[in-house]
Amino acid sequence: MIDNNGLPIGVFDSGVGGLTVLRALRQRLPNEHFIYLGDTARLPYGTKSGDSVLRYSIQAAEFLVNQGIKYLVIACNTASSVAVEPLRQRFAPMPVIGVIEPGSMAGCAASKSGHIAVLATEGTVRGGAYQRAITRLKPDAKASAQACSLFVALAEEGWTDGAIAEAIAHRYIDELFGNDPRIDTLLLGCTHFPVLADALRAVIGPTVTIVDSADTTARAVEAELLDRGLLRSGNPLPPILQATDSPERFARVGSRFLGESFDAGRVELVDLAPST
Amino acid sequence: MIDNNGLPIGVFDSGVGGLTVLRALRQRLPNEHFIYLGDTARLPYGTKSGDSVLRYSIQAAEFLVNQGIKYLVIACNTASSVAVEPLRQRFAPMPVIGVIEPGSMAGCAASKSGHIAVLATEGTVRGGAYQRAITRLKPDAKASAQACSLFVALAEEGWTDGAIAEAIAHRYIDELFGNDPRIDTLLLGCTHFPVLADALRAVIGPTVTIVDSADTTARAVEAELLDRGLLRSGNPLPPILQATDSPERFARVGSRFLGESFDAGRVELVDLAPST
Repeated sequence: MIDNNGLPIGVFDSGVGGLTVLRALRQRLPNEHFIYLGDTARLPYGTKSGDSVLRYSIQAAEFLVNQGIKYLVIACNTASSVAVEPLRQRFAPMPVIGVIEPGSMAGCAASKSGHIAVLATEGTVRGGAYQRAITRLKPDAKASAQACSLFVALAEEGWTDGAIAEAIAHRYIDELFGNDPRIDTLLLGCTHFPVLADALRAVIGPTVTIVDSADTTARAVEAELLDRGLLRSGNPLPPILQATDSPERFARVGSRFLGESFDAGRVELVDLAPST
Repeated sequence: MIDNNGLPIGVFDSGVGGLTVLRALRQRLPNEHFIYLGDTARLPYGTKSGDSVLRYSIQAAEFLVNQGIKYLVIACNTASSVAVEPLRQRFAPMPVIGVIEPGSMAGCAASKSGHIAVLATEGTVRGGAYQRAITRLKPDAKASAQACSLFVALAEEGWTDGAIAEAIAHRYIDELFGNDPRIDTLLLGCTHFPVLADALRAVIGPTVTIVDSADTTARAVEAELLDRGLLRSGNPLPPILQATDSPERFARVGSRFLGESFDAGRVELVDLAPST
């Protein structure tokens, strides 16, 4: 039997947002080796149809699997909402995890009132995967969802605090609480949104809990690696970073999401679909 | 000799923004027939590399040319900044026009001080095509450019006036005028931006001129059709609308840009690259 423990964990996202998930994974699993693929040539996934996102996700996953990985993490919420089951079937027995199930578990655990709101992209909200996961985990929960389309642009522009970020957050939050004032938990259902947590906190006040799926996903990966005996021992290795477009922009914008600065020379430009 | 006058004019854009150009074209050329292609599966082009944008532009143009067109309008600023010359060479003698040359002419004509600023996407600003076109047309001009990344999301969200739009406009405008207080003309170098003209006007006051490339491009197309004897006579036909993803979103968001409401049933879903 081949020992897969030393193989990297593959992580993919539509762009740089998933680096918040990579960051949480590295904190929790410092001995693991990671390959991160950002499909920057086709970002954002959040406004695309489910069919297109599924097709892109299969290409991204195959590209990582072909490099040899022991575990696949879908760090993109929109991709998680359509691709977890298809990718599990395609690559079984290799484990595949998305961010929606762990995020929903964290949201349900945090909520006392059972009124949980998901902030996400248009695509994730429209797909309804978070709402379904929450009511499956907690059948008496009331799950609402708010598309916050401007948050992605705001996070990528780096305008993560101050008057503009708060005014935008206010508008989305007002709409959400106007429909359900009993919400006590906000689940950040887009990997871009954790960098906006302070602006959201300023708007919602101290009593509402904010949870994101990055750390819960990292915990779930750790538990499954343990369970399957797949943990890597050995010295830490720097992650391999790959992008389908613009390594320079990936490094500039991505450093904010990874929480440490890296330059474009660290990013490998790759092509998932050479014929296009 | 085949009479091409009855053929449609092909217009392409990365998404819905170019519908502002289609709108201007239809106003000026009501007897022409148009095919509009929005590459919504791969939008936005504004944050992608020049190589990717050129490849996408060639695919979009070929798709239109294969349907039989007499003229190609690149309604996307980012695509215009890299693809006009390659597409002219590829499809000669069919005329190809982008929005940058006409927009720059309008900017130069409007400016008295010669200090002209372009508001555009990251990709268009970085490519420098407007700055080069302006200084080629008016060698003593001082051209500056400001990337306004949030404007696209703002326009697509429909938050085109009010406090948030103005606060965002203020931040970009302050940066621009901080570097050159003598600017007297703002050139909207992204097809999404005309819908934000009122918010910009509220911020810059009455003395700065705002020009956009949509109407100037329509004038240039009219002049060239006349010149080549290619004007269509006959009854007006409704435009053919095609998108590479999400006809529903194309209709919902696009109606704002076309200036008239249309539903998803009017939008044909097409695939430029079946293999991906």
